[in-house]
Amino acid sequence: MEVLVSRKEHFNAAHKLYNPTWSDEKNKEVFGPCANENWHGHNFELIVTVIGTPDPETGFVIDLKKLSTLIRAEVTDKVDHKNLNLDVDFMQGKMASSEVLATEIWKILEPQIPVVSKTGRLHSVKLYETPRNFVEILA
Amino acid sequence: MEVLVSRKEHFNAAHKLYNPTWSDEKNKEVFGPCANENWHGHNFELIVTVIGTPDPETGFVIDLKKLSTLIRAEVTDKVDHKNLNLDVDFMQGKMASSEVLATEIWKILEPQIPVVSKTGRLHSVKLYETPRNFVEILA
Amino acid sequence: MEVLVSRKEHFNAAHKLYNPTWSDEKNKEVFGPCANENWHGHNFELIVTVIGTPDPETGFVIDLKKLSTLIRAEVTDKVDHKNLNLDVDFMQGKMASSEVLATEIWKILEPQIPVVSKTGRLHSVKLYETPRNFVEILA
Amino acid sequence: MEVLVSRKEHFNAAHKLYNPTWSDEKNKEVFGPCANENWHGHNFELIVTVIGTPDPETGFVIDLKKLSTLIRAEVTDKVDHKNLNLDVDFMQGKMASSEVLATEIWKILEPQIPVVSKTGRLHSVKLYETPRNFVEILA
Amino acid sequence: MEVLVSRKEHFNAAHKLYNPTWSDEKNKEVFGPCANENWHGHNFELIVTVIGTPDPETGFVIDLKKLSTLIRAEVTDKVDHKNLNLDVDFMQGKMASSEVLATEIWKILEPQIPVVSKTGRLHSVKLYETPRNFVEILA
Amino acid sequence: MEVLVSRKEHFNAAHKLYNPTWSDEKNKEVFGPCANENWHGHNFELIVTVIGTPDPETGFVIDLKKLSTLIRAEVTDKVDHKNLNLDVDFMQGKMASSEVLATEIWKILEPQIPVVSKTGRLHSVKLYETPRNFVEILA
Repeated sequence: MEVLVSRKEHFNAAHKLYNPTWSDEKNKEVFGPCANENWHGHNFELIVTVIGTPDPETGFVIDLKKLSTLIRAEVTDKVDHKNLNLDVDFMQGKMASSEVLATEIWKILEPQIPVVSKTGRLHSVKLYETPRNFVEILA
Repeated sequence: MEVLVSRKEHFNAAHKLYNPTWSDEKNKEVFGPCANENWHGHNFELIVTVIGTPDPETGFVIDLKKLSTLIRAEVTDKVDHKNLNLDVDFMQGKMASSEVLATEIWKILEPQIPVVSKTGRLHSVKLYETPRNFVEILA
Repeated sequence: MEVLVSRKEHFNAAHKLYNPTWSDEKNKEVFGPCANENWHGHNFELIVTVIGTPDPETGFVIDLKKLSTLIRAEVTDKVDHKNLNLDVDFMQGKMASSEVLATEIWKILEPQIPVVSKTGRLHSVKLYETPRNFVEILA
Repeated sequence: MEVLVSRKEHFNAAHKLYNPTWSDEKNKEVFGPCANENWHGHNFELIVTVIGTPDPETGFVIDLKKLSTLIRAEVTDKVDHKNLNLDVDFMQGKMASSEVLATEIWKILEPQIPVVSKTGRLHSVKLYETPRNFVEILA
Repeated sequence: MEVLVSRKEHFNAAHKLYNPTWSDEKNKEVFGPCANENWHGHNFELIVTVIGTPDPETGFVIDLKKLSTLIRAEVTDKVDHKNLNLDVDFMQGKMASSEVLATEIWKILEPQIPVVSKTGRLHSVKLYETPRNFVEILA
Repeated sequence: MEVLVSRKEHFNAAHKLYNPTWSDEKNKEVFGPCANENWHGHNFELIVTVIGTPDPETGFVIDLKKLSTLIRAEVTDKVDHKNLNLDVDFMQGKMASSEVLATEIWKILEPQIPVVSKTGRLHSVKLYETPRNFVEILA
């Protein structure tokens, strides 16, 4: 029987929604206050879910301490207290929307899960920009 | 890569669970205090999820401001501070359960999503009657 | 050393804000959608706080099971799945605002606390109408 | 149209992660503080989701009062204020991880859902060990 | 009997902690990642509490719609989707800490409360920078 | 102007309510399931509040990183993943109620606050045993 196992981490970051191929006017028109030139920011919540069969010796699909360590090393240490547009290498040249950020986080974590879990594989990356606006990528 | 994008809205409404083809006794027996003739009410939370491919120009599957405006115009403005049994046209003649309410909300929103999103389609309508009782419709 | 001890209970009720000495127009003007004639409702959260000195034999200021039983018997059983304007004896002839409801709950509970606690007295009644609108009475 | 209906219950329990076929040193090495010999504990949150077609007479997939009663009788009454390793018959001889506990809860509830719902079947058992660590079993 | 009435609003903003009279090294040493030159940000939650006697005609200490309108006009419209250090006139020349921001919000709102409430006066301004870090000013 | 500054930490622990001078029967009668001989447990949330005047150079009453470090070193590292009755030196010979635990935490932290803050002093220790049962000590 397969089980989904989830770990929630958080980070605080600044960003703006801005397409550099557009005029400032078009950016304001499309993105509204999210295009504010001096940035705004959020307390992001990130939930990473792994699916697999529990190991009979530990009862674990994945050791949640190891999953937490992986998420921090590969993702949250790189975005926490940072500017998503300026400071984060894996977001360079990309729109700083939650959809794009979650997609990049998926690409980073997906190959790393089998390194820390015998049977687990990445099932979901869920990213809350606010408690009312959030995105998810499902396997 | 497809992404699920969610927006949470809320509304406060009165309702009762009451089948008019049954006696008052049977309604009390089946629905208990939910059949109270003078109504009771809830702070409902409504989460609408759209799935699609992010637009490369915006990074958006759907503009969440437009999704919020749609949900308010088509749903929450019609149920907020209302009586679900008496005041809401799309609930006339129907049981005012969360299952039925979520089903009607799905029917209203499903054809409207492509109007505000190029690639998006409705994926889920989730309705919390209380933090402990909730329903969801999945595509 | 005195300690404050709190118990959170909840109830779901219908109500409307309506002053019967005013015209319908004035009620609509002052109370807006809260005056909807067919009612609306909320999931109320009620936090009751008692202050006192812990009993050395139990470590308790007040047994929280007894406080919960008291709140249910004296308050939430009388308002849960009810209409605050029509069904609740202690709200008859009163405005069904959260301020007034919390005041009446205070009057009911204040003399009862010493019955279930040797050193405790009522310190606060806090009532959430929604997560964003709430009232409190402090000793 | 099928609807998912969920009920959230909670229980407080002690446990430790400990494989009796291993030395104390290996248990400490693998499980860290979770292997503390004198136990630790959690406020567990359990969400049980049933999927089915609403009954036209009630608007219900499943009566949530009956689902709550079932969960309490079959699960939470047996684990609340208990030690998962020592006091719970259905966990005897098993690792007290959330993955294993959720699996056992699934096995208990799955055959019972059709007893209280005409069209419903078990869809998900979700178990929060903490707000940041949780597991789920999906049909 | 006086009642405390609270309204919760939110805003998303960027900021950094930076004392311009110090070297970059000292700023990094004192403020750590909060001094990141390219900013970071938060979903702030702001709770404003007014104390007073309920008006017998309305049951209100203060009309919460008017309090919400006041907070938005005087505070959140000026900080939402903004940079606290660069874009907010009432924070010019001040440290952008939560302590200082809450103090400035107090100064703005305190004289305005009597304009929208006959008996009410400002009792508390509470500001959550994250769910784990928050400040409050009490009358 | 004085400001209250709060930091929330958490820990997971086992305990039981048991007065060793009483018979098992009396313990069961007074404490009910909380007296379960094999323990139960909770995810405790601890909020520590310091009051003082913000330092003009930093905008801080107290550096929240230092407050967090202090709480972890002096309190949560000693109770997290522990048994409150058996493993915690400052609870030896005391009832393991939330009232008593919060009182001991107050005694530990109160003299330490001036060490990490020029103007701050301890204002409140608030301890959630569950989201519905919590205690607080106020200066």
